[in-house]
Amino acid sequence: MSLPVTIKQIGAATERISPYAHRTPVQTCRSLDSITGAELFFKCENFQKAGAFKFRGACNAVFSLSEDETSRGVATYSSGNYAAALALAARLREIPAYVVMPWNAPEIKRAAVESYGAEITPYEPTVETRESTLAAVVETTGATFIHPSHDPRVIAGQGTAALELLEQVPELNLVLAPVGGGGLLSGTAVAVSELSPSTRVIGAEPSNADDAYRSLQAGYIIPSMDPQTIADGLRSSLGDLTFAIIKERVEQIITVSEEAIVHAMRLVWERMKIIIEPSAAVAVAAVLESDLDVQGKRVGIILSGGNVDLERLPWQADSAASGSRY
Amino acid sequence: MSLPVTIKQIGAATERISPYAHRTPVQTCRSLDSITGAELFFKCENFQKAGAFKFRGACNAVFSLSEDETSRGVATYSSGNYAAALALAARLREIPAYVVMPWNAPEIKRAAVESYGAEITPYEPTVETRESTLAAVVETTGATFIHPSHDPRVIAGQGTAALELLEQVPELNLVLAPVGGGGLLSGTAVAVSELSPSTRVIGAEPSNADDAYRSLQAGYIIPSMDPQTIADGLRSSLGDLTFAIIKERVEQIITVSEEAIVHAMRLVWERMKIIIEPSAAVAVAAVLESDLDVQGKRVGIILSGGNVDLERLPWQADSAASGSRY
Repeated sequence: MSLPVTIKQIGAATERISPYAHRTPVQTCRSLDSITGAELFFKCENFQKAGAFKFRGACNAVFSLSEDETSRGVATYSSGNYAAALALAARLREIPAYVVMPWNAPEIKRAAVESYGAEITPYEPTVETRESTLAAVVETTGATFIHPSHDPRVIAGQGTAALELLEQVPELNLVLAPVGGGGLLSGTAVAVSELSPSTRVIGAEPSNADDAYRSLQAGYIIPSMDPQTIADGLRSSLGDLTFAIIKERVEQIITVSEEAIVHAMRLVWERMKIIIEPSAAVAVAAVLESDLDVQGKRVGIILSGGNVDLERLPWQADSAASGSRY
Repeated sequence: MSLPVTIKQIGAATERISPYAHRTPVQTCRSLDSITGAELFFKCENFQKAGAFKFRGACNAVFSLSEDETSRGVATYSSGNYAAALALAARLREIPAYVVMPWNAPEIKRAAVESYGAEITPYEPTVETRESTLAAVVETTGATFIHPSHDPRVIAGQGTAALELLEQVPELNLVLAPVGGGGLLSGTAVAVSELSPSTRVIGAEPSNADDAYRSLQAGYIIPSMDPQTIADGLRSSLGDLTFAIIKERVEQIITVSEEAIVHAMRLVWERMKIIIEPSAAVAVAAVLESDLDVQGKRVGIILSGGNVDLERLPWQADSAASGSRY
């Protein structure tokens, strides 16, 4: 079956973004190896530009546009990492970026987007006002809309992380990536299944936002409605493109509890001394606290990002007590 | 003038510890480069075994002992990273380790030492009881005392981080390291001055624990008395060996405020997505917030460690309010 994104597109994306994106390192941790009995290889997208893998897809999309298309800039909606990623990619191509953000988005995220020179239009956080606000912005500016995950250029860009991982670490038995809108997981699935067919690809998802799990069971897309999870990057749902790829090339989706996410995040901070965000911890939690058998296996894990509010950590008492993010 | 530690000893230490210690990576950060106008190269000893450079010196000392000396184990006093480092080194050589620790040492530090199988003897935290408790432990067990910094084997071990850094990054103009007891700074100074004579070596110290600064000014050792600084790894003072080397081979000591330490620590967490402890942030603060001219220079910074109590971060309101560590 032909997929909406090919390995050739991922190869081209790798070349296209190479002047701008970091080829991030792969780190290992003996302590986590001994806890899991596996050999774990962490692809550190928390060290990526703008702090998350999202820059790969945004950068590939922005630099895929024709001169003509770029003249009026790019637009998107996002409350998180993708907004900053697209803003940075647009700045690097020296074109305008318009970001539609919920008015109550964290100040730190808004500041990041603004620091890259994007113009922010706030909206009342519902799906309807998001769409209508975006439509108005596109109408006014003539900017090209680039969806955070439902776009072949974005998916191909996200797949470059796994392509690099396979170059950096041979003979992986498994590769895990978190799944929200599915851009990262579907890009990963194409790259891995084409370049290393014997390597299994597994998605990891919060139980509280398990639309990918349920969609795969059902055979059609069942979106999550306003899911409550600390993994704020994984609240969005699969779309047609990402579902089509994941259905074909992903072995299974593992769901993990909020407690497992927080525990995995803290363990990585403590043992690896690197900062990962809750969404990245979801894939680690799948290795630590599910039935997945990783004993003796070589396991790649894509640490999707490292953007965290350092004022309030999820394991701190006042944070847990406030509870609004759970 | 002949120094108490030679480059040959540091070379031998590099070889001796190589089966056990990590050759830690050097990381860079465009955002910090653009803030400082320098090219910064961070030697990540926060990724070292047991979370700090201390493992290098402990490992070199433990594996330098004769079979006969090792038979009754090793002993030391430390409330922090060195205790865990020595305990781990002893476990790797399969010999006993005895650690004298203040009874009120953080639970997390005690747990680390215990997890490596060392035997802890608590003491009332004064210098006198520390010395007498250690003496009693050594008397009873026959263990070999290995001082955290005033020992040529330890200093040579600490110097291996800078030796690696010079191999990893050519043509550095400056190398900065924090200074407490001076093991890291003096080892660094020997390695750098011998292998790259045109590279300047600079120490960084909390203003609140500025014994190295004052000692260098005076020309003789002026110990700090019970200094209050968040950089808990830098509360100890220079000894004869480290002072002799630092006097000869270190260009200057820069002192930084508590606020500058916290700011630098947070900036590294946010921008580099890595966890460093306050003592490591001291060297970063010296680059960010002193008169040191780093414009256009290639600057190596030794990030000494990453052991932090994740329950309470220094920039969080309740932590600053409690204030006991300042």
